[in-house]
Amino acid sequence: MSEIRQDPTTGDWILVAPRRVSRPWQPSDFCPFDPGAPETGYGWDALILPNRYPVVAPDAPEVEPDPFYARLRAYGRALVVVETPEHGLDDISDLPEAQIRRVLGLVAEEMAKAASDPAIAYFLFFRNKGREIGVSLTHPHSQIYELPVVPARVARELERSKSYYEERGRCLHCDIISAESKSKRVVASWPRWIAFVPFYARWPHEVHLYPTRHVQLFTELGEEELDELAAALKLVLCGLNKALGKPMPYMMVLHQAPLRGGPYPHYHLHFEIYGMYRPDGKLKYAASAETGANIYTLDTTPEDAAERIRAGVEICSASRLGHA
Amino acid sequence: MSEIRQDPTTGDWILVAPRRVSRPWQPSDFCPFDPGAPETGYGWDALILPNRYPVVAPDAPEVEPDPFYARLRAYGRALVVVETPEHGLDDISDLPEAQIRRVLGLVAEEMAKAASDPAIAYFLFFRNKGREIGVSLTHPHSQIYELPVVPARVARELERSKSYYEERGRCLHCDIISAESKSKRVVASWPRWIAFVPFYARWPHEVHLYPTRHVQLFTELGEEELDELAAALKLVLCGLNKALGKPMPYMMVLHQAPLRGGPYPHYHLHFEIYGMYRPDGKLKYAASAETGANIYTLDTTPEDAAERIRAGVEICSASRLGHA
Repeated sequence: MSEIRQDPTTGDWILVAPRRVSRPWQPSDFCPFDPGAPETGYGWDALILPNRYPVVAPDAPEVEPDPFYARLRAYGRALVVVETPEHGLDDISDLPEAQIRRVLGLVAEEMAKAASDPAIAYFLFFRNKGREIGVSLTHPHSQIYELPVVPARVARELERSKSYYEERGRCLHCDIISAESKSKRVVASWPRWIAFVPFYARWPHEVHLYPTRHVQLFTELGEEELDELAAALKLVLCGLNKALGKPMPYMMVLHQAPLRGGPYPHYHLHFEIYGMYRPDGKLKYAASAETGANIYTLDTTPEDAAERIRAGVEICSASRLGHA
Repeated sequence: MSEIRQDPTTGDWILVAPRRVSRPWQPSDFCPFDPGAPETGYGWDALILPNRYPVVAPDAPEVEPDPFYARLRAYGRALVVVETPEHGLDDISDLPEAQIRRVLGLVAEEMAKAASDPAIAYFLFFRNKGREIGVSLTHPHSQIYELPVVPARVARELERSKSYYEERGRCLHCDIISAESKSKRVVASWPRWIAFVPFYARWPHEVHLYPTRHVQLFTELGEEELDELAAALKLVLCGLNKALGKPMPYMMVLHQAPLRGGPYPHYHLHFEIYGMYRPDGKLKYAASAETGANIYTLDTTPEDAAERIRAGVEICSASRLGHA
């Protein structure tokens, strides 16, 4: 019964996957990602597993075309990136940089494989953290969807950055980096990466992490860029977890160019990280205005959020120096 | 400090309103919407109040233009529609049809006023129901944002329906009504309205309610259309609350044409209602894929959801006949 449908009014894609309801909900007695579990075995630092409750799959059934609507076969891969054998860590930022680097390397390898499958149009790498936002398994992990379609939010970014590029001959995202780097919203920076709360943050503690080099695909990042990315992710996510004095539930998603239909010289990959606590430590809900109209209410300012996250980053830097 | 900012990468608008953090969170001892409260007084059936924690306001401060980003004055009105003096009702569908009709009449009156203010581009009417989705006051109420900008999700619908209209000379939404009316996804229908779970539902129990007449603005609805809308909303929302045997948290938003820049002959107003429980009665969370990429996972099928909601609607119809 699974298939992919498109909303003709917005262009959004919907992964219809009714089997998923039977998936385990925060089981407390058994973790499928621990070493020695049926799918993991022993002797690994990090590994990529097929999601047992996939929204897309290589053996997805063929679908009948609809006379009016766009309906596609749910072909693809839904994968889990188990980031460590250690079950009890709160966040990927609790891992050593070298281990985060290993995880990033695994993801890049998987992406190179996906790129060789002509039916995969998009490689979506993301991470959900915190029971408050519905995470069903707490063992540190991120996820990959290898999809036959380009997610609508990325498609819109591509359209808009293309218009900008055609009109002004410059990359919109490079211009954003330039504007942000001069602002009070910078959270941390490195020679090859910059992290800031964007002027246009939608969520109360939102950080965007950009490579300063104009790069479109994750697999185009060099060794040094990946090394520094591991350090940047560790520091930014640690800072987010320290910003309010308690661990922050967050969503993280890699926005990059599609694997097909390129080149995309107007695009620039980046990570978007949405910390979901308001400044008072209460969860921000997306209700009708956000969900039904894409109009967002921010109960803080991006400038104040940056200040809180920078304070968190300083705590993390200091404790790291203390360990050295 | 409040202002409106635009995300240049997506076109989304963000209402930056840091004062809102101090608003009350589900107070249990006092309801500001009860009769006799400081802002309500006595002797009313339904009334519209200014939101005490507004995201936009008539006295919003002027803002400095930004050299790079779009930043606007947060001019507008944020209003609360108190739908009944009765504090203890769960939902607007628990009110008699005549009372719902009164509420709709008040909203239409307010919209006519908003239309006379040239600085208001959009009239956003919406309703959040359920503590599970963050509703801070349980007294039955809906909300209005009168905004100087067009919400991005509506703007995208306008663009796409305009292209469709230009290419085929027909209203996309009329064609959707035609396709849906022949499907198993119809939940209920009336001479002037039709309710269905769209082929492209994003949420587990989503219903769209369309006038069968090609109408763009809420204020263009006639008396009979409003009468029937009151009956339709009562039945559909009651059905949603009965679909799983427990009250359903939902979001409801009216999508209509903007007040400025028209005409919009390609557009067609409708209500979108998102019931947020999955079939197993657990809350559906929008995490990274949904929030960060606009790619949705549906743990059911729209066809199954329609069946459950129709069963709820039948319970509501039967109990109504029992009362007659």
